[in-house]
Formats: sequence, structure tokens, C-alpha cells
Amino acid sequence: MDLEDALRTERKLIESRIADLLDREIDDSLDDPLTRPMMEAIKEFTLRDGKRIRAILLVMGYRAVGGNDLDRARAASVSLELIQSMLLIHDDLIDDSPERRGGPSLHKLFESHHGSKGYRGDGTGFGINMAIIGGDLAESLGEKALSTSGFPPENTLDALTCQADMIRDTGFGQILDLYSEALPEWSEEMVIKVQKFKTARYTLEGPLHIGAKLKGASIEQLKALSDYAIPVGIAFQIIDDILGFYGDPKRSGSEDLADIKEGKRTLLIMKALELGNDDERLLITDALGNKDLTVEAAEKVRAIIRKTGSEEYSRKMAQELSQKGIKALEGSDLDPEIVEFLKDLAGYLLGRA
Amino acid sequence: MDLEDALRTERKLIESRIADLLDREIDDSLDDPLTRPMMEAIKEFTLRDGKRIRAILLVMGYRAVGGNDLDRARAASVSLELIQSMLLIHDDLIDDSPERRGGPSLHKLFESHHGSKGYRGDGTGFGINMAIIGGDLAESLGEKALSTSGFPPENTLDALTCQADMIRDTGFGQILDLYSEALPEWSEEMVIKVQKFKTARYTLEGPLHIGAKLKGASIEQLKALSDYAIPVGIAFQIIDDILGFYGDPKRSGSEDLADIKEGKRTLLIMKALELGNDDERLLITDALGNKDLTVEAAEKVRAIIRKTGSEEYSRKMAQELSQKGIKALEGSDLDPEIVEFLKDLAGYLLGRA
Repeated sequence: MDLEDALRTERKLIESRIADLLDREIDDSLDDPLTRPMMEAIKEFTLRDGKRIRAILLVMGYRAVGGNDLDRARAASVSLELIQSMLLIHDDLIDDSPERRGGPSLHKLFESHHGSKGYRGDGTGFGINMAIIGGDLAESLGEKALSTSGFPPENTLDALTCQADMIRDTGFGQILDLYSEALPEWSEEMVIKVQKFKTARYTLEGPLHIGAKLKGASIEQLKALSDYAIPVGIAFQIIDDILGFYGDPKRSGSEDLADIKEGKRTLLIMKALELGNDDERLLITDALGNKDLTVEAAEKVRAIIRKTGSEEYSRKMAQELSQKGIKALEGSDLDPEIVEFLKDLAGYLLGRA
Repeated sequence: MDLEDALRTERKLIESRIADLLDREIDDSLDDPLTRPMMEAIKEFTLRDGKRIRAILLVMGYRAVGGNDLDRARAASVSLELIQSMLLIHDDLIDDSPERRGGPSLHKLFESHHGSKGYRGDGTGFGINMAIIGGDLAESLGEKALSTSGFPPENTLDALTCQADMIRDTGFGQILDLYSEALPEWSEEMVIKVQKFKTARYTLEGPLHIGAKLKGASIEQLKALSDYAIPVGIAFQIIDDILGFYGDPKRSGSEDLADIKEGKRTLLIMKALELGNDDERLLITDALGNKDLTVEAAEKVRAIIRKTGSEEYSRKMAQELSQKGIKALEGSDLDPEIVEFLKDLAGYLLGRA
């Protein structure tokens, strides 16, 4: 089957599971007219247009080590979509983003809710507070989706521990990201470290491992999946940063030029700072973290990125990492059909740029 | 053993487990000079002076149904202290509290950290963002403490599901709390509902159930624990609200008069609004949510609470609920020593006011 077809088919199946699970959760839990808007909002937010890449990789990790109860794996994979909702809801607070996935961020949604109902007090604060709690709530629903998935208890426990470590490591990546905006100096090594924790562990390795652990994967199988996931994940983030830099609409992120405006130290930026001359360096550092960045100034930064060879360097590194990841699958005892899927996926992720 | 001695002894044992677990987690996880301050901060925050009532109740729930691997139960109970840290860290963001448990709130701690290191950008924002992530990180460490506690996998899974439901229900209570400040009207029924979800489920029933499930408790045993925990938990919150109203230093909360200033609708307030005359009602509604409340105005509100009989009503209700909870333990097949402990605890919680 064609990769894009496979992704689309799996995505639809997972989305119907998300809807089922949240409908059941809404019915079973405290059904109060005042808690219902939050539960409905979490459902609507989670079901907004998305690639479901993490949930799909959970199912693929499970299949890679011989799992065949696919309905159950899809139900378990809802966990990752709810954890993703938690991270996005909280991330939008961190970045004060008004939008997400083509709709309002959760704090903006409840700020509007406050206004439209004519509630007392500060609507902005109400929205923020609801989003802090809403994120935590989505997390707990995610934990439960996995803990009640019905796989053998020992495997499920291993998967839950793996998921907890994945969330912790994502937190580490986010913390390093905050420091990257706060510290005067940053290094290429640290850029890769952030990408490893925020993307490679979270988007690829964690989901694959959780799925594989639900089927009781061997240490060798987990290692093969890691050796694929970490380099491909870093490559994916490098490419995503390039897309973000050019404001590509295909990109998962939010606003055009947001990365520069936030002062994010990506590989593109770090390498250009290293390779550029003093004037170029100054132009870049002036643009970084400048909320009022003009289109002209941004175009100048882009020209430097190209001229210094930073973009070429980034693309080449992504290419090499992707190849390295694909190679790690060869000779493994993972299911051949899934190995093909993972190889195609690496190419697909790379090809977006 | 005397109740206060028992609480103190158990508390010390649990605190040494918290330190052990977090030290191990710091060593095992990504040890980066930039993630270490957060891990150290979570450890310091979690170990600040506290009653450890939830962790102790987990151990007691486990013992109540015949559990005797107490070291293991204490290690599992660290989970609840870390989840408590998550809730407090996020709660301090919601209330914008500068202090917690005799130290700075986590967002203030990282705001100072930002300032003292002379970092770039907005220190307040840095502190808030670190605290959003830090709370999520503490949660993941809590999940892992339970998932790796080494009890039989089926029991551990049941306990984890119970913990996820407990966090969800705490979120519901927090959401209702936010609405209580935003809506023009509130009812006594809703006050009790908030107390049930925010306190009774979270502080008593959840911990007792998690502990009992680790030993594979029967449905009847879980029901007896619920029939104790829910009324005693509501009674505890009613008493805590009275303490908060008089600014008692023994109280778990933070600032004097904070509840009135935040506009919190407690049973005390609701009943006084119902029983008072028009002038008294006006005085109370003017004070509610007034951040600049004077000591004189607060004293007037206190006098109304007493005069209308609202305080007496609240104390009587707490007394009755406490009795009802204690009665539920009689005739149960729970361990007699733990039944005595729980009865004493109900009296102790009530006697604080």
C-alpha cells in the first residue's frame, strides 16, 4: 500500500477511536453542565485536523514485533493523542498562541466562553486557568486510555512506565528550549540535544516503544527501533525547522516566522552564526527574539542562511541522519512490512522540505 | 500508638522514600546542567514541610485490606506526593501565589533564578513557563513511581487507573471552583459538589483506594472505604474553610483571608447569604472577590457569619458527616487496627477547628 494511503487509513481508524473513548468518558464521568464544556472542548481540540503520527507509530511499533490485535492497539494509541493535547494546550500558554490546528487555543476558547456568557471577573485569567487544568485533565484521560487498554498487565505497565519517561524527557526538551532563549550562548550540540528530547524521543521513539512494549518486545527489538527513531526524529526536526523558517503552510507549527520571533536557536541559525561574518551575525542576533520583525529583515536573514551554506549543511545533516536511521532497520527481526513502512516514512518526513 | 505519633512516624518514612526516589531519578535521567535545577527544585518543593496525608492514606488503605509489604507501599505512595506537587505548582499559577509551604512558589523560584543569573528576556514569563512544564514533569515522575512500584501488575494497573480518575475528578473540582468565582449565582449543593471532588475524592478516597487496589481489595472493601472517605473528606474541607476564614496558621492554605479575596463560595458564605438580611448580603457580596479587602470589612463579614448561625450550621454539618463516615467502618472486614486509625483521624481532622 502507498505510504500516504496507509497513513490516511490508519489516521481515520484512530480518530474514530478518539471520538469513541471521549464520548464514553463524557458519559461515565461527572456529567455536570459546568464540566461538560471542558470535556467537549478537549474532544473537539483533540479531533482537530492532525497527522496522528504518534498514535500511528504506536500501532506500527506494536505490529513491528508481531502484534495483531490492531483494534486494541488503536484504542491504546488514543493515549498519545490526549498527551499531545495536554502538551499543545500548555505549549500555547507558554507561547501565548491564540490559535492551534485551525482553531482557537484552549485558553482563548475559554476566554471567549467567559465573554459570551457575561461571567464575572477577568476573562483572560479564566481562560488561562481553565487551560492549565484542561491540559492536566487531558493527561489523566490519556493515562487511563493506556492503563485500561486490555493488553497483558505486565506489558501495559511497561508501556505506561515508558510513556511516563517519554513525558519527562519531553519536559527536559522544553526546559532546554526555554534556556536556549534565555542564555546568551548556545551550541550546535545543545540544538541537537533539544531535538533529540523534544522530537526524536517524543514523536518517534516513545510511540514506537510503547506499542512494541504492549506486545512484550525484546531488548534487541527496542534497540533497533531506537536506532531508527532517534536519528530520523532529529532529521525530522531539522527539516521542520527549515519549513518553519520559510513559513511553509505544510508545517506542523503555528505562525510564520514564529521561530525567529521567539528567538529559537535552530540548527539553521546556529550554523549561520558560526559561518557568517560579523555583520551577518549582528543581523541575525538582532532578528532573534524580535517580536516586531519586519518581512524585509526576515528576508535578509534568509539570504544569510542560504549564502553561508547553513541551509545546505542542515539539509545534508538531515539526509545523513535519515539514512543512518533506515540502515538500523536492516538485519533486525522486526516485521518486514513495518520495516518497509518505517523506511518510507523516513523518506516522506525528509521529502517535505 | 497515639495518632499524632503514628502520623509523624509514617511521614518520616515516606519522606525518606521521596528523597530516595528523586535522587535516583536525578541520576538516571538526562543529567544536564540545565535540567538539573528543575529536578532539584521539584525535589526541594516536594520535600518542604507537609502532612503527607495522601501518601499516609495510601499506606493505610493498603494495610486496611491486609497488605504487609509496607516498604513497597511507601515507595508507591511517593506518587501521590509528586502529583500533589504538580497540582500545587499549577494551582500557584492559577492563583498567582508567590509562596507555598514556607518557600517561593515554583514560578517565583524560577523567576528569581532568571534574575540572579542575568538571563535574557522576561523573567516573569520564564518562571511561569518553567512552572507549567515543571508541574507536568512532576506528574510524570509520580506516574512512574506507581508504575514501577513492583506490586502485582494487575493490581498496579488498577491502582494507576484509579489514580488517573482521581486526577480527572480533581480537575472537575477545580473547574467548578473557577465557575464558582465566575457565575453570578451558586448553590449550597454546588459547594458540597466541589468539596466532594476537590477534597473528598482527592485527599481521602483516591489515596485509600489506590493503596487498597495495590493489595487487590474487594468491591465491598472499596465501598466501605468510600463510605468513610467521602463524608469525612467533605467535613475536612468545611473545617478547613472555617480555619481559612479566620486565617488560622494551622491551616493548609496560604494567605490570610485569601478565600474571601478570591471570591470563593464556601459553605460558610453560602449559608450566611441565605440566612442574612439584605444589608448583610450586600456586605458579603461586596467583600467577595475584593482584592483590597480591609481588615475592618473582613471583621464585619466574620460577625455576620457568626450572627446568622452560618458558622454553627457548618460546624454541625461537618460533625454529622464525620460521624456518618466513622459509622461506615463498623461491620466492615477492614483491618481493625486501621479502622481505629481512620476513626481517630476523622476526629483529628474535625478537631482542628
